[in-house]
Amino acid sequence: MPNPTAAILVIGDEILSGRTRDANAYHLAGELTRVGIDLREIRVVPDDHDVIVAAINALRSAYTHVFTSGGIGPTHDDITADAVAAAFGAGIDVREDARALLEASLAARGRTATPDQLRMARIPDGATLIVNDLSGAPGFSIGNVHVMAGVPSIFVAMLDTVLPTLEAGAPRLSREVRFAVGEGRIASPLRELAEAMPQLSVGSYPFREGDLYGTNIVVRGTDEALLDEAVARLEEILAEVG
Amino acid sequence: MPNPTAAILVIGDEILSGRTRDANAYHLAGELTRVGIDLREIRVVPDDHDVIVAAINALRSAYTHVFTSGGIGPTHDDITADAVAAAFGAGIDVREDARALLEASLAARGRTATPDQLRMARIPDGATLIVNDLSGAPGFSIGNVHVMAGVPSIFVAMLDTVLPTLEAGAPRLSREVRFAVGEGRIASPLRELAEAMPQLSVGSYPFREGDLYGTNIVVRGTDEALLDEAVARLEEILAEVG
Repeated sequence: MPNPTAAILVIGDEILSGRTRDANAYHLAGELTRVGIDLREIRVVPDDHDVIVAAINALRSAYTHVFTSGGIGPTHDDITADAVAAAFGAGIDVREDARALLEASLAARGRTATPDQLRMARIPDGATLIVNDLSGAPGFSIGNVHVMAGVPSIFVAMLDTVLPTLEAGAPRLSREVRFAVGEGRIASPLRELAEAMPQLSVGSYPFREGDLYGTNIVVRGTDEALLDEAVARLEEILAEVG
Repeated sequence: MPNPTAAILVIGDEILSGRTRDANAYHLAGELTRVGIDLREIRVVPDDHDVIVAAINALRSAYTHVFTSGGIGPTHDDITADAVAAAFGAGIDVREDARALLEASLAARGRTATPDQLRMARIPDGATLIVNDLSGAPGFSIGNVHVMAGVPSIFVAMLDTVLPTLEAGAPRLSREVRFAVGEGRIASPLRELAEAMPQLSVGSYPFREGDLYGTNIVVRGTDEALLDEAVARLEEILAEVG
């Protein structure tokens, strides 16, 4: 059976302006590979309601799961929850379970919720809260869309809550063999290997270190014995090209 | 006049598997901001012909420019050039100008081109080469699509070739003010600021350093005087919340 698939929608002008380097898509990619969910697309869009709605609807119909990152805080530029509700045609308002979490978290710091902070308890009808230890403001899942924070430490905490609840696939394993020659020198035997073992993906990643043009070959798949066989073949190629 | 817009399509299983953290979209974002081209979308897709063709066609009709990163080497998993040609309905074959560049570069290292290496001289009909100092294998531009290497140093060199040829917009400037309070405490005055100055975008980026919950406010726009005014207002807010 093929693995479940996923996409992540990163929402944030700060990524597109180059101010911030994305960390959440990178973290998600590693975690999904570990549990056997195939990440098929990363998309970064600005803080724009209509663009977010269109992207949510395109991605949720194409993949088993959609994760979002960013735009669920208390300020005017936090528009993700409303956009996700609109994408599902769902109502959205402050929900009592989310408000209780938020107020408890603020109370622990001796504060009460401002009207702006209460915006973080706006949850679409029918959604399930993503509770986490780091932030009193929960994320939420609605249908196959999991809406999480943009702050990397909170994104990680929310993903730790969500991931164990999802059906896992066969973990995607990989092996890497390093060649001290450019990829042009090994392209032919690699092509033969890829054709002979269609169950595996064979990736070729050139690198340069000073004067050395080298290539890392990564084989990926779910069958450990097959990967061992591929590595053995790669080591034969390595012995030939030196 | 609004600034030109852009998207980048990053092609590579290695990003989606979490093996590699993207560097090229991040570099491009900073460079485009500098020259006043608005990056509106980042999309990462796997090494899959049909998916790449569909993404190229979606993005090139939506934005002024599309940049691609990855998949133009000599190995079986390098399928970008053919996918771009297919997206444009253009023929593709080894082109003499590209072959000459490639062979000169190999000759400088005492080598001749293998048939696999010659794949890197496959250029769609009607494309313009993107020549660069680092790699003998050129990128190319066809229509509004600029096809560049995935190896970050070569991506940077190719972008340095392409960017000066594109019509620039008004550089997008930004100013940042740091608040030692969480964003919930300043959401109301920020909303007022954003509403009062619709020509600017006002972004709110919470952070946590140990026990401190803080917020960086970034105002972006093209008018320096307006940005100065926004910073003055932010400093008044800062004085109020302490």
